[in-house]
Amino acid sequence: MKTMVKQMEVGQKITGFFVCASKIVKVDRNGNRYMDLRLSDASGVIGAKMWDVNDADIERFAGHDIVKVQAVVNSGFRGAPELKVEQIRKATAEDDFELEALLPVSPRDPAEMEAELAALRGTISNPYLAVLLDEILTGEMYRAFCEAPAAKGSHHNYIRGLLEHSLSVGRVADAIGSQYEDVNRDLLVTGAILHDIGKTMEFDYTTAIDYSDSGRLLGHIVLGERIVADAIGRLEDFPEELKLQLLHLILSHHGEKEYGSPVRPKTPEAFILNHADDIDAKANVFAKKRAGTDEPWTEFNRVLDRFLYLRKVEE
Amino acid sequence: MKTMVKQMEVGQKITGFFVCASKIVKVDRNGNRYMDLRLSDASGVIGAKMWDVNDADIERFAGHDIVKVQAVVNSGFRGAPELKVEQIRKATAEDDFELEALLPVSPRDPAEMEAELAALRGTISNPYLAVLLDEILTGEMYRAFCEAPAAKGSHHNYIRGLLEHSLSVGRVADAIGSQYEDVNRDLLVTGAILHDIGKTMEFDYTTAIDYSDSGRLLGHIVLGERIVADAIGRLEDFPEELKLQLLHLILSHHGEKEYGSPVRPKTPEAFILNHADDIDAKANVFAKKRAGTDEPWTEFNRVLDRFLYLRKVEE
Amino acid sequence: MKTMVKQMEVGQKITGFFVCASKIVKVDRNGNRYMDLRLSDASGVIGAKMWDVNDADIERFAGHDIVKVQAVVNSGFRGAPELKVEQIRKATAEDDFELEALLPVSPRDPAEMEAELAALRGTISNPYLAVLLDEILTGEMYRAFCEAPAAKGSHHNYIRGLLEHSLSVGRVADAIGSQYEDVNRDLLVTGAILHDIGKTMEFDYTTAIDYSDSGRLLGHIVLGERIVADAIGRLEDFPEELKLQLLHLILSHHGEKEYGSPVRPKTPEAFILNHADDIDAKANVFAKKRAGTDEPWTEFNRVLDRFLYLRKVEE
Amino acid sequence: MKTMVKQMEVGQKITGFFVCASKIVKVDRNGNRYMDLRLSDASGVIGAKMWDVNDADIERFAGHDIVKVQAVVNSGFRGAPELKVEQIRKATAEDDFELEALLPVSPRDPAEMEAELAALRGTISNPYLAVLLDEILTGEMYRAFCEAPAAKGSHHNYIRGLLEHSLSVGRVADAIGSQYEDVNRDLLVTGAILHDIGKTMEFDYTTAIDYSDSGRLLGHIVLGERIVADAIGRLEDFPEELKLQLLHLILSHHGEKEYGSPVRPKTPEAFILNHADDIDAKANVFAKKRAGTDEPWTEFNRVLDRFLYLRKVEE
Amino acid sequence: MKTMVKQMEVGQKITGFFVCASKIVKVDRNGNRYMDLRLSDASGVIGAKMWDVNDADIERFAGHDIVKVQAVVNSGFRGAPELKVEQIRKATAEDDFELEALLPVSPRDPAEMEAELAALRGTISNPYLAVLLDEILTGEMYRAFCEAPAAKGSHHNYIRGLLEHSLSVGRVADAIGSQYEDVNRDLLVTGAILHDIGKTMEFDYTTAIDYSDSGRLLGHIVLGERIVADAIGRLEDFPEELKLQLLHLILSHHGEKEYGSPVRPKTPEAFILNHADDIDAKANVFAKKRAGTDEPWTEFNRVLDRFLYLRKVEE
Amino acid sequence: MKTMVKQMEVGQKITGFFVCASKIVKVDRNGNRYMDLRLSDASGVIGAKMWDVNDADIERFAGHDIVKVQAVVNSGFRGAPELKVEQIRKATAEDDFELEALLPVSPRDPAEMEAELAALRGTISNPYLAVLLDEILTGEMYRAFCEAPAAKGSHHNYIRGLLEHSLSVGRVADAIGSQYEDVNRDLLVTGAILHDIGKTMEFDYTTAIDYSDSGRLLGHIVLGERIVADAIGRLEDFPEELKLQLLHLILSHHGEKEYGSPVRPKTPEAFILNHADDIDAKANVFAKKRAGTDEPWTEFNRVLDRFLYLRKVEE
Repeated sequence: MKTMVKQMEVGQKITGFFVCASKIVKVDRNGNRYMDLRLSDASGVIGAKMWDVNDADIERFAGHDIVKVQAVVNSGFRGAPELKVEQIRKATAEDDFELEALLPVSPRDPAEMEAELAALRGTISNPYLAVLLDEILTGEMYRAFCEAPAAKGSHHNYIRGLLEHSLSVGRVADAIGSQYEDVNRDLLVTGAILHDIGKTMEFDYTTAIDYSDSGRLLGHIVLGERIVADAIGRLEDFPEELKLQLLHLILSHHGEKEYGSPVRPKTPEAFILNHADDIDAKANVFAKKRAGTDEPWTEFNRVLDRFLYLRKVEE
Repeated sequence: MKTMVKQMEVGQKITGFFVCASKIVKVDRNGNRYMDLRLSDASGVIGAKMWDVNDADIERFAGHDIVKVQAVVNSGFRGAPELKVEQIRKATAEDDFELEALLPVSPRDPAEMEAELAALRGTISNPYLAVLLDEILTGEMYRAFCEAPAAKGSHHNYIRGLLEHSLSVGRVADAIGSQYEDVNRDLLVTGAILHDIGKTMEFDYTTAIDYSDSGRLLGHIVLGERIVADAIGRLEDFPEELKLQLLHLILSHHGEKEYGSPVRPKTPEAFILNHADDIDAKANVFAKKRAGTDEPWTEFNRVLDRFLYLRKVEE
Repeated sequence: MKTMVKQMEVGQKITGFFVCASKIVKVDRNGNRYMDLRLSDASGVIGAKMWDVNDADIERFAGHDIVKVQAVVNSGFRGAPELKVEQIRKATAEDDFELEALLPVSPRDPAEMEAELAALRGTISNPYLAVLLDEILTGEMYRAFCEAPAAKGSHHNYIRGLLEHSLSVGRVADAIGSQYEDVNRDLLVTGAILHDIGKTMEFDYTTAIDYSDSGRLLGHIVLGERIVADAIGRLEDFPEELKLQLLHLILSHHGEKEYGSPVRPKTPEAFILNHADDIDAKANVFAKKRAGTDEPWTEFNRVLDRFLYLRKVEE
Repeated sequence: MKTMVKQMEVGQKITGFFVCASKIVKVDRNGNRYMDLRLSDASGVIGAKMWDVNDADIERFAGHDIVKVQAVVNSGFRGAPELKVEQIRKATAEDDFELEALLPVSPRDPAEMEAELAALRGTISNPYLAVLLDEILTGEMYRAFCEAPAAKGSHHNYIRGLLEHSLSVGRVADAIGSQYEDVNRDLLVTGAILHDIGKTMEFDYTTAIDYSDSGRLLGHIVLGERIVADAIGRLEDFPEELKLQLLHLILSHHGEKEYGSPVRPKTPEAFILNHADDIDAKANVFAKKRAGTDEPWTEFNRVLDRFLYLRKVEE
Repeated sequence: MKTMVKQMEVGQKITGFFVCASKIVKVDRNGNRYMDLRLSDASGVIGAKMWDVNDADIERFAGHDIVKVQAVVNSGFRGAPELKVEQIRKATAEDDFELEALLPVSPRDPAEMEAELAALRGTISNPYLAVLLDEILTGEMYRAFCEAPAAKGSHHNYIRGLLEHSLSVGRVADAIGSQYEDVNRDLLVTGAILHDIGKTMEFDYTTAIDYSDSGRLLGHIVLGERIVADAIGRLEDFPEELKLQLLHLILSHHGEKEYGSPVRPKTPEAFILNHADDIDAKANVFAKKRAGTDEPWTEFNRVLDRFLYLRKVEE
Repeated sequence: MKTMVKQMEVGQKITGFFVCASKIVKVDRNGNRYMDLRLSDASGVIGAKMWDVNDADIERFAGHDIVKVQAVVNSGFRGAPELKVEQIRKATAEDDFELEALLPVSPRDPAEMEAELAALRGTISNPYLAVLLDEILTGEMYRAFCEAPAAKGSHHNYIRGLLEHSLSVGRVADAIGSQYEDVNRDLLVTGAILHDIGKTMEFDYTTAIDYSDSGRLLGHIVLGERIVADAIGRLEDFPEELKLQLLHLILSHHGEKEYGSPVRPKTPEAFILNHADDIDAKANVFAKKRAGTDEPWTEFNRVLDRFLYLRKVEE
């Protein structure tokens, strides 16, 4: 069984699969080349060095490859573990590894999340919307929806982050909507489930989470609107007004044009969805930060452009 | 009993009290002066004219005064009613009128709202916060909190709008907060109840809703923070951390500095309160717009800088 | 034959069809109601009054209706003509009028523009793009493309404005693109022709030019991208890269997110198309302004936020 | 006596107290650990290395501690001095060092500044304002006002920077105000002295200058307004109008909401104070830059977002 | 002698010269034309009507002409005076009127201001700058500098406003500069005197204050820099560094590029001049507002985007 | 003949001239000093080290000097070449090197560009503009115009970049202008040729491309306007309107005030020139990026604030 990065201890000999997060060839004082590497799996990242390498060693794999590594755990900077690599090569189709173990994943249990999704879908009583969810969330798209990350950086940036985030936005939107009469709850919750569906096409996440070409050239908002509009097109008698408002929810969920929504919210459900999405993104940032430190303040957070305060009031 | 503006019919003779919303003296083609007036009560505004007036007539009252009016209801523009004034003078302390009937008021029942507030306060189990609410929401401040408007224009701009809005933000914030672990619910709900407490001092609303001098020179955010900080100062042993985070909630609830918050949200509760406040303001705009029209689109809304879509999807 | 607004002279009796641009019922000093109207046709707008009207007169038509009018041309403000209406009613399906004469139209000849479009399409040598244009610009969509306006206000805001603008952007983009190697001319010109195709669905223009519901809720950029993507979906073997870059052209042609493009230009063709679109919009503003005045400066132009200088240097 | 960082010369043996500005444990090629340190005192910062350290060495102190160091001055990068540390440990309460010597301080003489402050207070003839200054600037608050820095980075970011800056803003505001009739000079100068009083609570500056929790969560503007409002509350008969305008000065002195003022200047004195504050901040930047270089241009200045030109015109 | 607008009383017969600020021909209920005019002189504006006019009456003058008027003062709106015009025609070269009396002028005495300017120039001890001021402020340019307004709207928008403003900026800049060592006082004061010299060419102010063509196409900042650079070019041996810094002062005095400065301040003198200019503009707004009302608050001020507070604290 | 940086191979001995792009003195583990250098010529940059240096070695040249170097090509980081310097000194007036070979230059042939410029000037039929171009583009100014770079970073940032860019903007502006009637082609093309003429004075480019003092303090837009205005001043009878519009073209060509234009475009030619300038700058960025890589995406481009897509659609 693979030794995860987080569990390594100085002195161990390890053999296993990693993602090569970066690879730089350097030259030491004696003129000999060595490789300065960063290797990652789902639990974290570790530095690694392979000394006195030749062309064959270097060409055996590239940055972003999944690699098989044999190494010893040394003591590096601040006494923290660092790998001294003995052998390294690109993984092949024959190799037996679990992708699962290599990329960061949602802290929530997959089966539990899928059950929650099924339950949430079960609460949609509008027959058109229920059928539409069945039409979209099936087969390959269903699997992609359950696996994809919700971002490259910032929030829910890990495998199954999209599902975790979509469920959470669904719950928050529902909680807000239920405070107001005249909010169409089924429309709102369906919009919440589907708002980021375009992210299934925005990211490549085979060995790392990065944007796809269509992600950068078209964007997940338009990609998502297309998925939903196409599915509606395959159904019969889907009400025109319902379609218009649902597509509006997806297109407007970033709230402002400068954040990438080609139209801004113009219905109560659209305003609520925009807020629920934003709240959940920030809540995820807090959850990750509090999990990683006991300090009262985070480092400066560039996305939110501020320091965050993590200390809890004792109840 | 006073005939309300909304119930007037052409041909009626009426006598009653109104707020003089505007008063302009004009001259007709024959060189005679007349007064072109707008009179309002809680139900709306009506145009009024008093013909052939002299200096004494004109000086009998001023714009923004509460006035006693005797008039006949004529048919004016678009066949809509207009008053032909026979007598008008400023109201005096001896006059018997209800302020209640003169300014626009919240559509919600006052007793029901006060009961809801009492119930919500009853859910606060943190003893410091419960005592703090008792310390602030009592006597004159309690009455002001139950009477004040929440705005001059935009949302909840009517008598008891502050109470209606504060309750609603409390419910929404609670609904959101309950979706996340690690949110201090009592802190959040107390912050929601008190977030706009400074508006008790920001507005004058004796004959119209307008800003007070301190409202314009200091702003309701700082005024509110002062009310809460002073109340905490009168209590013993209030925990320092709790105080800091509660004051932060009040100061940061507008979300961004350009919206008047001297600090931006840095805790989970502060982010949630900011969103709850914003959502409720927009929901009130929709509620008012839908109540007043059957059109699918509103007129262009300057505050939100867009047209709003009012058509509901049939469920 | 209809007397156009621009040709009316004081003393004429006229009978004809107009768009009722606005209708307000007012009351004169004697308490009698009259209708204060603005009537328009393709040549301009004229004020009109109908005196001493009753409920039946008033209900005979509504604002924005096409109306049949019998009237006398009087001298109104500044001696300019004004209609004194004798009879007015809503037009019916039996009436014989040309919509053409009622809404403003492009100054260019329709047949000439359609010929220019055919010629431009003939220059596209890439077989996929040529077929795609055939797929889209046919039948009802072709007619809509040739009739639609390009805007409600600002530039090319008249019938056939979309065609006029699309051709012009095509010419300008082609002229720019031909200055640079490595620009794919067929891709660029096809993008230019189709960049605003969504406007066929963004506007209603039966009796006035205004936004449709889907225009406001989804926007012409997404509507246009959908038209092109759906057409590509009906073709076989359309190259994936070509599709991606063409859709990118349409989505990014407003240049910045705050102007409604969900993605910003990332290819040379996308940058050029964005500039060509912008140049042509401004050139149309100048053309309209110079046509209407001999003054050296325009009135303050709100869209461009400046005064424009119209004086030409003598060559 | 302590050898200051600026006076160290290669070859010296030194023993003394420093602030440990940063501490990183690294590993050399042979696998031995060493500490890479930066040590500072009021005169500047110097690099330091301690080779072949063990756990006990490393745990003897932490970053930001005040440390006692025994070392030799070596020649490091560019021939500049670097310390080779022989012994290092955290300072204790028994140690005999002057905090004064460890943090950067104002270039102005403390006694001279206190005398200037006393003189400036003596010019306030309005009795309420004179008494208010006595009420605030006394005891612990007076000491804090005389010691605190005015910033972490940017301008007057050193011990006694607040006093230096407040005096300077007082002089500049007075100079401007005296050019205009109708400016209340006593109000303006009092506002200038007190405008940043909240900074006494915004910063911690025991071993380094950094924000306090309340500094980040409430901000110095609100903290300062509270100090002044509380002091006024302890006085009798302080005129209401004077209080309102003085608090307005403090709240609005950043000039714009996006710079953290919850209200913007609305009185002549408030506009002048805002300008005086801004001018003095920039003048301090120039003074520091000219002191440190003979180059005509500064490095790119991020805060001001430009290069500054330092060359003086010869008179 | 001319009766000024401010001194007119109901019942007077007046004959005199005015600027026709606006002229609209209207039609009364009986179909007769009348002219609705606004006439102004240096003391203010008054409404005027001429009834039952014919083509000859109307063509006798145009908007913005200086006109000779014979009229009776009637009581108009709110009992305020209004002219009933009996005769009106365009003024001719033979007419004997003082332009002085027709356009608004600075409240300061012209001779006093010129004396102050001479005194200020006398304080410049740098020989190059003293000679430069002599070179520029002479002959026609000197007269223009003493007559021109400083703006069309906003601040110092009256004849001799440029001189009044330039002197005031000179005094304020000098007062600020004298608080700092290392500020070149002569450079700063010369820059202050000349900073708006381009306004002599930016405005036409023969019958009203409006922009010239070059004012709109080139702007007063570049026009002013040209005047100074050309004058320096005519002098011998003017030091290059002094020239560079003086031109920088003029180009950068608006402070930010978005306010029209092609470069932003980069020297201490440039920062100070920018602030002095801004302070003086705002002080002039307050002075004008306080002169015209006893209300505590101004109407909403669009340029400053806020209400201003006019109440003075009693000393 | 000099070995260019791009052609160096490991093992070569080379002697030649370079620009010293940076020079840092470091100390190795043994306490010996060495120099860590970056040397550049027109083909690129290479790292270099000189070991065990003394004071004399170090003082023999400074950063930014042109230096004569004798060295061996070693294998450095990633196996890429690095120089081991044996001797290095500052170049002197006696040395025989071509500046041409040391700074990056335009990829276009100089003679061809000059011929193109001559041809373009030949197409100007307006006699005033033709003479003006002769007046400006002659002698020293002509040489500077043919040699200067167009930028320090971003686009056309190499010797002769100004000429290359000016020609290209001329072609693009002409191509756009020819699509519209009423565009004065000669005015537009002359403006395009001269729009960046101020860059001849904005940059120093003797050993590196950097801003001059006047470049930073006055800016190339004002410098350029001065060159043209002065030249017009030397001609007789140059039409005033033509002058005004040509100067407007130069001043407004950055399009917005925040980009440094003191006035924004107000004529058709000014709008077109602004777009042509912007298009050409971006086209140059694409050309340079595509020349340097086969990747589909560029690195993140800070100036354009996005990734650029380089993949071409196959035709």
